[in-house]
Amino acid sequence: MIDHFFHPDGVAIIGATDNAAKGGYHILRNTLAGYKGRVYPVNPRYGEILGTKCYPDIESIPENFDLAIYFIPAKSLPDTIRACSKKGVKAIIIESAGFSEVGEEGGQLQRESVDLARSFGIRLWGPNCMGLLDGHSRNVFSFMYTDKWMTLMKPGAVSLIVQSGMLSAGFLMMILERGGMGIAKVCSIGNKCDVNETELLEYLVADEETGVIACYLESIVDGRKFLELARSTPKPIIVLKAGRSEQGAKAAMSHTASLSGSAAVYEGAFRQAGVVQVYDVHELMDFARGFSKITPCGSAGGTAVITFSGGAGIVTSDLLADHGVRLAEFGPETIRALTEVFPPWMKPSHPVDVWPAVELNGLEFVYGKAVEALMQEPNVDSIIIESIAWHLSTPGNLVAAGEMQKRYRKPVVLWQIGHMEANEHYRAVAEEAGIPVFTEISRCAAFIAGVKAHSRKKAVIKTS
Amino acid sequence: MIDHFFHPDGVAIIGATDNAAKGGYHILRNTLAGYKGRVYPVNPRYGEILGTKCYPDIESIPENFDLAIYFIPAKSLPDTIRACSKKGVKAIIIESAGFSEVGEEGGQLQRESVDLARSFGIRLWGPNCMGLLDGHSRNVFSFMYTDKWMTLMKPGAVSLIVQSGMLSAGFLMMILERGGMGIAKVCSIGNKCDVNETELLEYLVADEETGVIACYLESIVDGRKFLELARSTPKPIIVLKAGRSEQGAKAAMSHTASLSGSAAVYEGAFRQAGVVQVYDVHELMDFARGFSKITPCGSAGGTAVITFSGGAGIVTSDLLADHGVRLAEFGPETIRALTEVFPPWMKPSHPVDVWPAVELNGLEFVYGKAVEALMQEPNVDSIIIESIAWHLSTPGNLVAAGEMQKRYRKPVVLWQIGHMEANEHYRAVAEEAGIPVFTEISRCAAFIAGVKAHSRKKAVIKTS
Repeated sequence: MIDHFFHPDGVAIIGATDNAAKGGYHILRNTLAGYKGRVYPVNPRYGEILGTKCYPDIESIPENFDLAIYFIPAKSLPDTIRACSKKGVKAIIIESAGFSEVGEEGGQLQRESVDLARSFGIRLWGPNCMGLLDGHSRNVFSFMYTDKWMTLMKPGAVSLIVQSGMLSAGFLMMILERGGMGIAKVCSIGNKCDVNETELLEYLVADEETGVIACYLESIVDGRKFLELARSTPKPIIVLKAGRSEQGAKAAMSHTASLSGSAAVYEGAFRQAGVVQVYDVHELMDFARGFSKITPCGSAGGTAVITFSGGAGIVTSDLLADHGVRLAEFGPETIRALTEVFPPWMKPSHPVDVWPAVELNGLEFVYGKAVEALMQEPNVDSIIIESIAWHLSTPGNLVAAGEMQKRYRKPVVLWQIGHMEANEHYRAVAEEAGIPVFTEISRCAAFIAGVKAHSRKKAVIKTS
Repeated sequence: MIDHFFHPDGVAIIGATDNAAKGGYHILRNTLAGYKGRVYPVNPRYGEILGTKCYPDIESIPENFDLAIYFIPAKSLPDTIRACSKKGVKAIIIESAGFSEVGEEGGQLQRESVDLARSFGIRLWGPNCMGLLDGHSRNVFSFMYTDKWMTLMKPGAVSLIVQSGMLSAGFLMMILERGGMGIAKVCSIGNKCDVNETELLEYLVADEETGVIACYLESIVDGRKFLELARSTPKPIIVLKAGRSEQGAKAAMSHTASLSGSAAVYEGAFRQAGVVQVYDVHELMDFARGFSKITPCGSAGGTAVITFSGGAGIVTSDLLADHGVRLAEFGPETIRALTEVFPPWMKPSHPVDVWPAVELNGLEFVYGKAVEALMQEPNVDSIIIESIAWHLSTPGNLVAAGEMQKRYRKPVVLWQIGHMEANEHYRAVAEEAGIPVFTEISRCAAFIAGVKAHSRKKAVIKTS
């Protein structure tokens, strides 16, 4: 059933318009830009919009169709559902607001609409949402006001389930503009009166195009099933659960009429189910991007840190400790390999501060040798590389580290400093090579902790 | 005495060279680029470097001078101190490594050198450090390998005391390239064998050019005095204390031979002394930049959040709660003012999600009116603005908010989304107007908590 939303045979747009200041214009424009099937704009005031024949009402559409996108005032929804039922409609995405999030009257209208749709076997998505984007089919059924997705959205492994318009629109575009993240499916679910995050999670867990699922949620309907799905899939599930605090829960109530539930209960349940919990919106996207790149690791060893700065290495050690991640102990082989590139007066320690070695033997040579030594160390299960985007090196090391990450199955993340353009160039190369790059050391540490949590879950799935 | 380091009458550079791959070249180049006084390169192999007469040894320098910058192998330090003592030298910055950080032998050499210097009344800075930068005099006594400071460094209020080369070199340049932060003095103190963070804190607390002091420290010498100074100055003191964890403390020992001390003891002592503690390197710089802009607030009220996204507002509420910061309650006047710009079907709540109002009345108008209403609300002591760098608005709002921040004495921070260029443009305008801009909501929340902690300290100083 959910598939009718993503791959419909025929789409009607209720409230299409040629006024570019209105969402109804953008739904039509976005749909025409990507969707390959039949499109029926509906609005009694136009004969044609954007070169496409427009119908005065649903009744006038000559053929049956699967999906209606609704963007007219809330009160007309029940009539629209009735009209749709006569056209074989399977699914309606309601992007208008004015339902349960505005009070009792809207809530009543929403409940009636759900009952009515159910009686016709029609599924409802939304209301009060931005609809959906599909990075592979390029179906974009959303009133998103920007064309940027047409150039920025690349197909990839990341799917999002978000109970916030921002995360599926302007913010998402900003993330795509940064680059490095491919999209499978983005689901903006708003008030989720019928289709909810748990049903979508089930769909995405089974979806071949989806490799990583990141969720922004204010509440979870059928939480037990959600956790069961998370526990049993090898795909990483990352959740930003909003409304953890009393003041946040109050705000969630007025946003999407969501009852947030106890933060402590969620925290514990997520941990048990191998859900990776995050707390901020960039963090959610960073983790999604990161998990879409890395090779999952074993989780028995420790993390290795190689850095150009003693200070950064110590801060990294502290931040890893905050997340319960320990630095790996090195065996004699690793010490020997590192000693070879170090100056005689300095013994390698951990974090591996390579600066004195770099002064002696050059940045590229030292990082190349040292990262290889760390990959071969049995006590290391993951590596944080701290480096410089600089004229003394090329991104060759990063490509090599990306290849080793796959060969040794030890994920690598990169934190770097450097001048803006060099920084962006090196970052793009690293992420192309499968190495996520983060701006903050604290994000590297949190992500490594998340990767380890996910790896533990995978190990359990494998052996059970 | 410390002033001789920052404003010396005559500087000798021991180990100057014309080889641009060596630090001794860059110390000379950087010194010549900014320092207005006499400069004496010292190296027996050259008659002249960079157009400046070079001396074979210290003895040959014809006049007395205040400061020597040392960048030759460690073992020659005692002889250099003796030679300097005959030239009236008051201060030596030792930028070479090879002292206590490399083991017992180096430690011995370091201690002997301190005793020797003391006997001549010479102060030592370092060793194993990057020296200093002064944003006002443009004295840069550092082997920093880049010219970027010559264009990027603007005079300003931020002084840094850092026990890490990175934070005074490459990383600092990256921060300056981002813009928005003016520099008073940067002190890279390395092994701090003589001049230490506490003495420098005392100097900077009294320094008229310094408004904010940010420190990266692996240990604190004379901690009691450090805390006393922090407690009694109205200037914000921000500290990243590295080596908080067991594995971090071990790393600190091998970096600058620092004994880190107990994390819990520091945490409590910092809180009592009104020191704002941070945990990551970008965070340290973000806080320094932030504090250099904002008007300190009262701390009796709550924080107001105005946003274009219900989801972002909830996440902000949660993250503020994590830091013990509560959302302000609004009185009837504020509710009335907000209601005027809202659509009739939506009551204003808090966080103030203005999107429905923006759709009705435009982004610029709504933000302008709403921010003014929040400024006038007596229960509000600080404001987080979440906005969009977008074609529907101009940065006019940000300029207005910056002016109101000063008039009402209520600090404002900005979190925004938008396309890259617009984002950077709006950010520059906001920071010019005195509004710090942060990339992450969590950083906004942490910073507001820091501002409140600092404001409480200031209130105590004022009344005692």
